[in-house]
Amino acid sequence: MGKVRVACFGLTLDGFSAGADQSLQNPLGVHGTEMMDWFFPTDVFRKMHADGESGETGVDNDMAARSFENVGAWVLGRNMFGPVRGPWPDESWKGWWGEEPPYHVPTFVLTHHARKPLEMKGGTTFHFVTDGIHAALERARAAAGNKDVRIGGGVSTVRQYLKERLIDELHIAFRPVLLGRGEALWRDLDARVLGYELAEIIAGERCTHVVLQRVG
Amino acid sequence: MGKVRVACFGLTLDGFSAGADQSLQNPLGVHGTEMMDWFFPTDVFRKMHADGESGETGVDNDMAARSFENVGAWVLGRNMFGPVRGPWPDESWKGWWGEEPPYHVPTFVLTHHARKPLEMKGGTTFHFVTDGIHAALERARAAAGNKDVRIGGGVSTVRQYLKERLIDELHIAFRPVLLGRGEALWRDLDARVLGYELAEIIAGERCTHVVLQRVG
Repeated sequence: MGKVRVACFGLTLDGFSAGADQSLQNPLGVHGTEMMDWFFPTDVFRKMHADGESGETGVDNDMAARSFENVGAWVLGRNMFGPVRGPWPDESWKGWWGEEPPYHVPTFVLTHHARKPLEMKGGTTFHFVTDGIHAALERARAAAGNKDVRIGGGVSTVRQYLKERLIDELHIAFRPVLLGRGEALWRDLDARVLGYELAEIIAGERCTHVVLQRVG
Repeated sequence: MGKVRVACFGLTLDGFSAGADQSLQNPLGVHGTEMMDWFFPTDVFRKMHADGESGETGVDNDMAARSFENVGAWVLGRNMFGPVRGPWPDESWKGWWGEEPPYHVPTFVLTHHARKPLEMKGGTTFHFVTDGIHAALERARAAAGNKDVRIGGGVSTVRQYLKERLIDELHIAFRPVLLGRGEALWRDLDARVLGYELAEIIAGERCTHVVLQRVG
């Protein structure tokens, strides 16, 4: 069985993994992009999201590439899928990523509101899971087979899985920026009690990559 | 007039600047020394606290040395001065640092309980201030003259001065360790609203030095 992983997850000097007031204009919350500024220039990101032009290679790019390796399924929180709240008014919202999302595997979206699966270009199918984080992970594991399940976020989703001790590996991309307000990753969680240990620290060009592994 | 500075202030990956349950055995709280492990091998620390043997030089040592430059007075919280709580039972507690503390200038200790000044070897005199953080800073500024006032800690003291926008420069020594529990530096503080901006990021041998400056 593969691992359950979080990867390339941003963290600021003041402890936030997303800014406040997420919206259509600010998918990462206010000032949230400052946290992810290391990712946008990478070749991995540019080939995936931008105009297909090549980007920078180096440590940050290697870590970005590694985050996509061996991933058999994703789990996303509703907020990471989009800014729509409450019941789906229609089927028009298809995620932040256009016609071909960067997942290319079955992707399970946590929501309280049922919706039929949404098949996108490039192999991504969004499945909407209404019966909780455990059910979503079970379905993702089944879909992933021997590969890993990647928990994409957002912060609330990652925190829920952390609390339940379901995340095996957590790769944090630490940036010494200040958001001021936002969603705090560790607030009221005890990383040691949850079993995390430092596995790797890798200095990137624009952030510090810290890999935590759950032991015992 | 000099600056009001915090320097070499530890911060962990999970947002703590001290561990939980400070005590005589754990002046930095449980696991708190893991946060300061970059400081102990430096030449600055070894010459100051240890057996006088020389330690490592390099970036971390330079930043440690810089933290002591141009300091004309210190302000310390009661917990940073010692583990004694409530009224002073007697005059026997003289700080964590032995006969010759590493301050060498007037040092103002915040406390609710009056005590007469305590003159130590090497120029440090501890003055016990019972009328609050503003009074302590005023006295420290007067004592420092044109030099800087350094707010030594602990976390609660630094947070009180941050809230009142009284700290001009905050040098954080970030270490990607996990304490699990402890005193969170930024909890419920908004670093941007308080006016902080990134001034310097310097990769040390064992930690990342981040210097924040208050603008406007």
